[in-house]
Amino acid sequence: MNGISWARKLVLVFFPVVAGASMAWAQMPSHVPIPKDNPQTPAKIELGKQLYFDPWASSTGTVSCNSCHNIMANGTDNRPVSMGVHGDLGDRNAPTVFNAAFRSVQFWDGRARSLEEQAKGPLMNPVEMGMPSEVVITARIKSIPGYRKEFDEVFGGPDPITFDHIAQAIASFERTLITSPSPYDRYRRGDKSALTSAAQRGLKLAQSAGCTTCHSGPMFNGPAEPMGTGFYMQFPLNSDNEYVKKYNLTADLGRFEVTHQDADKHMFVVQSWRNVEITAPYFHNGSVKSLDEAVRVMAKTQLNQTLTGAQVQDLVAFLDSLTGGFPHITMPRLPETPNTTPLGQ
Amino acid sequence: MNGISWARKLVLVFFPVVAGASMAWAQMPSHVPIPKDNPQTPAKIELGKQLYFDPWASSTGTVSCNSCHNIMANGTDNRPVSMGVHGDLGDRNAPTVFNAAFRSVQFWDGRARSLEEQAKGPLMNPVEMGMPSEVVITARIKSIPGYRKEFDEVFGGPDPITFDHIAQAIASFERTLITSPSPYDRYRRGDKSALTSAAQRGLKLAQSAGCTTCHSGPMFNGPAEPMGTGFYMQFPLNSDNEYVKKYNLTADLGRFEVTHQDADKHMFVVQSWRNVEITAPYFHNGSVKSLDEAVRVMAKTQLNQTLTGAQVQDLVAFLDSLTGGFPHITMPRLPETPNTTPLGQ
Repeated sequence: MNGISWARKLVLVFFPVVAGASMAWAQMPSHVPIPKDNPQTPAKIELGKQLYFDPWASSTGTVSCNSCHNIMANGTDNRPVSMGVHGDLGDRNAPTVFNAAFRSVQFWDGRARSLEEQAKGPLMNPVEMGMPSEVVITARIKSIPGYRKEFDEVFGGPDPITFDHIAQAIASFERTLITSPSPYDRYRRGDKSALTSAAQRGLKLAQSAGCTTCHSGPMFNGPAEPMGTGFYMQFPLNSDNEYVKKYNLTADLGRFEVTHQDADKHMFVVQSWRNVEITAPYFHNGSVKSLDEAVRVMAKTQLNQTLTGAQVQDLVAFLDSLTGGFPHITMPRLPETPNTTPLGQ
Repeated sequence: MNGISWARKLVLVFFPVVAGASMAWAQMPSHVPIPKDNPQTPAKIELGKQLYFDPWASSTGTVSCNSCHNIMANGTDNRPVSMGVHGDLGDRNAPTVFNAAFRSVQFWDGRARSLEEQAKGPLMNPVEMGMPSEVVITARIKSIPGYRKEFDEVFGGPDPITFDHIAQAIASFERTLITSPSPYDRYRRGDKSALTSAAQRGLKLAQSAGCTTCHSGPMFNGPAEPMGTGFYMQFPLNSDNEYVKKYNLTADLGRFEVTHQDADKHMFVVQSWRNVEITAPYFHNGSVKSLDEAVRVMAKTQLNQTLTGAQVQDLVAFLDSLTGGFPHITMPRLPETPNTTPLGQ
């Protein structure tokens, strides 16, 4: 996998415009990929919704998946890095959970090959949800009577409450978190009034400047890939500019932290542009507060271009046109623990 | 007000059985009291819901009203004391927000005379939501375009985003958080099968033992009082027992911390029994993990009685029959901050 991404990187760096021109943007995919071993069912999705919102999935009972991936907002926490149990800070910016079902790998370094794998990460991360072990997590869930009943109904078998099943239920719910078509999608379908003139200029500029080298495909995060594959790019590519130091962009070694191969140093999963308007702050370390500055940084570090103010405005107008609509969701009722509390169990 | 509560305390301590017998429990009130200066409107309730769930109401962007008063669960966090910004701990157990609209005063020490007053407290509490001043709070809300529009529509005027209006909107939403009738209410309406035999024994025991001295009225938290009045009781009344030391029940001086009058030492607002089943842990310091132990502690400290195991079980069965149904609520869509983040503003 690393070899593939490295080879692709070389191709893209040396032929950005050609590659960009050949990779058309498409509309939102019409179907969410569902893994064969975790089919969607209404009861599983509802269970996953409860787990997603349940702060008892964390050691302190204060942090849920939704704390950092807030689906009442944009699927993130809008913070540079997230704040987990005891107010501890993570080291990377929380990606939005909306449309995560379309990503072929999860996390900035692509270390999870599925939503199921991803869901397990924060639960066990000491500065996120802080659960010390799978055993403690499953014991906590087993201590809540309503969950025992639901897991039995959804998964059955002699031991329905397992770490795998917890992750499967959460992933099933996350696969329902898809945004509806954006103004850009309407434009692509023929409604030329869906984009402002600035957005239309931005669209053309994004293609001609070479942004599409990486931000291609229906999600603007690279070509469609089989689940588990990953599409990576070095960031920053060019380090001889003011932004790299100002925003501390080279401190994080990216995918190298997973593979420990030199070729993966500073390699990150290419991020989707969809809904990027509302997921500030930007980059793996969340160091850049505004989208216009993020656009300037990307142009300089990835394409060695210095944009004019008007160009930045146009690009931001185009990116803003990629914001979809968010689903209306009924709150789950979290299972109670009658006459006691889960804490200390 | 303090004089009244103190006089009542004397009456109740010396004539508990008589007082209990004379104060009938009633069914849930059919109407929520609405203050004249804060009428309910759908738009205000919706705005209040957004503010209630918005973590940007806290300094770090991580703690919302819902963090400690979780309406997807029981309106509390089920923790001994709440965990606020930076993982800091509060000093008292978070009361449930469900049916709070019926309380004549708010907080364990009754220091807020309305939901509006209460809503302001946690926002400014350094270990809860940690906002340093009203100016910072209103500036934060003003920095979010969607709120500017909504406050203008709901409140109008030259300066619609004020601390008072923020509190009014939140309080309006909270007045919708009412639980439906419990098995006990159905029993009172004539459905004798609504209570188990154990619950029926517990009901009689609660009356004969003297619990009704304080836990009277439709909410089982004292007689109906005009808003702002408060119904207080000393806790613990009897300190010469193992529980007081074990659960550190006298460390908190209660209402004395507000009035600094000796008569208010260890005086607390009498808590409702409704939904008490699911709001563990118990007491102002959340020191008692289970309802059966809470019942033993109350019998000993307030009535100087040592209950048998069977009596405790019956009382718990009765208390469990006071759990109502919870409303199904659609999640709010929190206003976005396009192309930027509120942090640091």
